[in-house]
Amino acid sequence: MNLRIVPGLGHKDLPKYEPRQNYEPRSKYHHNPGRSGRVARNIVLSVLTLLCFVVFINDDVKSTVVGLGSSPVPGTENVYFYDLNDFEGHPNGRDHDERLLICVPLRNAEPVLPMLFEHLHNMTYPHHLTDLAFLVSDTDDNTMTVLKRLLDESLKKNAPGGPFNQGTILEKDFGQVIGQGFDDRHGVKVQGARRKLMGKARNWLLSASLQPYHTWVYWRDADIETAPTTIIEDLMKHNQDVIVPNVWRPLPEWLGSEQPYDLNSWQESGAALELAKTLDEDEVIVEGYAEYATWRPHLAYFRDANGNVDDLIELDGIGGVSILARSKVFRHGANFPGFAFENHAETEAFGKMSRKMGFKVGGLLHYTVWHQYEPSEDDLKKMKEMEEAKLKKTEKKKANKNVNA
Amino acid sequence: MNLRIVPGLGHKDLPKYEPRQNYEPRSKYHHNPGRSGRVARNIVLSVLTLLCFVVFINDDVKSTVVGLGSSPVPGTENVYFYDLNDFEGHPNGRDHDERLLICVPLRNAEPVLPMLFEHLHNMTYPHHLTDLAFLVSDTDDNTMTVLKRLLDESLKKNAPGGPFNQGTILEKDFGQVIGQGFDDRHGVKVQGARRKLMGKARNWLLSASLQPYHTWVYWRDADIETAPTTIIEDLMKHNQDVIVPNVWRPLPEWLGSEQPYDLNSWQESGAALELAKTLDEDEVIVEGYAEYATWRPHLAYFRDANGNVDDLIELDGIGGVSILARSKVFRHGANFPGFAFENHAETEAFGKMSRKMGFKVGGLLHYTVWHQYEPSEDDLKKMKEMEEAKLKKTEKKKANKNVNA
Repeated sequence: MNLRIVPGLGHKDLPKYEPRQNYEPRSKYHHNPGRSGRVARNIVLSVLTLLCFVVFINDDVKSTVVGLGSSPVPGTENVYFYDLNDFEGHPNGRDHDERLLICVPLRNAEPVLPMLFEHLHNMTYPHHLTDLAFLVSDTDDNTMTVLKRLLDESLKKNAPGGPFNQGTILEKDFGQVIGQGFDDRHGVKVQGARRKLMGKARNWLLSASLQPYHTWVYWRDADIETAPTTIIEDLMKHNQDVIVPNVWRPLPEWLGSEQPYDLNSWQESGAALELAKTLDEDEVIVEGYAEYATWRPHLAYFRDANGNVDDLIELDGIGGVSILARSKVFRHGANFPGFAFENHAETEAFGKMSRKMGFKVGGLLHYTVWHQYEPSEDDLKKMKEMEEAKLKKTEKKKANKNVNA
Repeated sequence: MNLRIVPGLGHKDLPKYEPRQNYEPRSKYHHNPGRSGRVARNIVLSVLTLLCFVVFINDDVKSTVVGLGSSPVPGTENVYFYDLNDFEGHPNGRDHDERLLICVPLRNAEPVLPMLFEHLHNMTYPHHLTDLAFLVSDTDDNTMTVLKRLLDESLKKNAPGGPFNQGTILEKDFGQVIGQGFDDRHGVKVQGARRKLMGKARNWLLSASLQPYHTWVYWRDADIETAPTTIIEDLMKHNQDVIVPNVWRPLPEWLGSEQPYDLNSWQESGAALELAKTLDEDEVIVEGYAEYATWRPHLAYFRDANGNVDDLIELDGIGGVSILARSKVFRHGANFPGFAFENHAETEAFGKMSRKMGFKVGGLLHYTVWHQYEPSEDDLKKMKEMEEAKLKKTEKKKANKNVNA
């Protein structure tokens, strides 16, 4: 173990939030309309999506000649100028009116969009300094229609928490064949291909939305259930070039109530470097699987529920659930490799690449965001068994009661 | 040798140009005002540059809230939508109104700017589909003022060849200590650090200027002396994801009249792969130096002045003098590594990275652009000696004449 602890900044400005300790089996954002309901809903949504595209895809929007700035340099027709030396980024960015770009990759995300936008509205980083950008990929649910409505509302004058500055929706299909269910996404065999594809998707989103005036970029997964509203400021103040919080998830009580979720934030280990030497250069090491025994120190496992939320360690690989980065990291050329970079892809490779380029990459040991719990097929089976057992018990009790009566 | 020749497309649409065969010692773009003239000029230019910055750097331009599109999606306040599936790029891009971004990195480029803009004006790819973006780095000459004037002129209605659509000037200093003279730039020891820095500069330029509607990106060095005006169409028609022409330079007659210039376009060799295994992972292989005997087939050496201009070979590394690339290559995440990627950096690593990501990377064997000849210190010494010898000869003749008279 080679844990490089960086002294915390003290407790004086603790983020105001209570970590989720218990699993709530169904939130207001989840619908389970049953099979026939789903079919009917899908038909309605397909028609709406089609209609939406007829409105969206028109030449006025897509081929209009537009500028980087709203007004050209005085005395010129159409010349725009940016001194990029001015966009380095301060730990107290809001005091310097530093512009933030929030990037959210989406795929069949309709059920979680209301939750996502509630989180966005509650964020305390000034909304007028913040642009929102979404990439919708390989989606066959109603993500696009719902997103357009919620994004539009979040830009309106009466938006809760104040209107965001601008919103961009990008659409790009990668033709992926991997499903989006928990088991589809988490089998070891598909991980390498999946991570490479997700890396490419992130790069598409970034390259089409990053503007010269953005100083910070925040990557946020749509399926975070609980997070501090002050997360931007809380991450920014540590003056890292790339920084992530700890990411856990709540569990049903019979599964232990909570669990480390994101195992992609880690420090490099000798064992993993030795392992990498034995792998094909295109193979991707995946954390959390017996096939890849890296013995790396994972950020997630160091969490102490009562620990100092400002305790920071250096990281080599990072997870993508919630990343704050200075935009200069991307401008220098670091991004989310869509190929095996030092036997990693996507966010883990982004961490390694950023380190290689001399940037500071850190993770907060005890400051935690909570990922949504999605039951695996095994969990669902177990839940069904438990429900049946409970039912049987009740019936038995009832029968006994009847016999005794 | 493992030269993979791709059959040419035939001679039917030869670009209309004559390769430069002879060296012209001084073009109209070069001034040599002498030492006192230079000092006076520098003072004037410094004052102008300062004035220019007072005009340029004002909050109106730099912090104005701007959008990606000139008008939002109908029915929304400020939502912009782009279907990026529509921007794949056709070999006949102009027939599809495909938008082109031309990226030009600059450093102390004042003397060559008029030549560069003459080339740009003469380009036949529709100017109204073309945006121009420049990055000015670590510059202490008058590049910024001249650039602003020439760029502004090129966007005006009466610009030769028609106005370009938009121009962007970005400024970013990297604090490099390496000089820009021929010898400063071409010593083997500084090459690695220099190439990494140039890679970063290209990434800054790209990440601040690439917009969702750009389908193609053309990288052009400012110091190209002769190039076909149809170069965009000529490169585009080959349907490669990344493509470069051959790059030579004219020489004084006593040096052989002409010479291959860009040795960064090559196919990988077994010898180089073996060599790479012996190097530190941060070391950069530099072509054209005895220290790195790669025995790679270089695009430059295969040129035949009478060859078919459409003959194409696959490449692994590429040079940066003149690159046409589909923007999707960058959106997927390929860029110009500012670190040693497989023991290469900048454009050579860009070629390797693009190949790794499955993109088609090609080079034209006989289609040639001509880089400006900059005499090395040795050349200048030799020229001086030749001039002195000539003078001596004349004086001797004169003396003999006087004796004979």
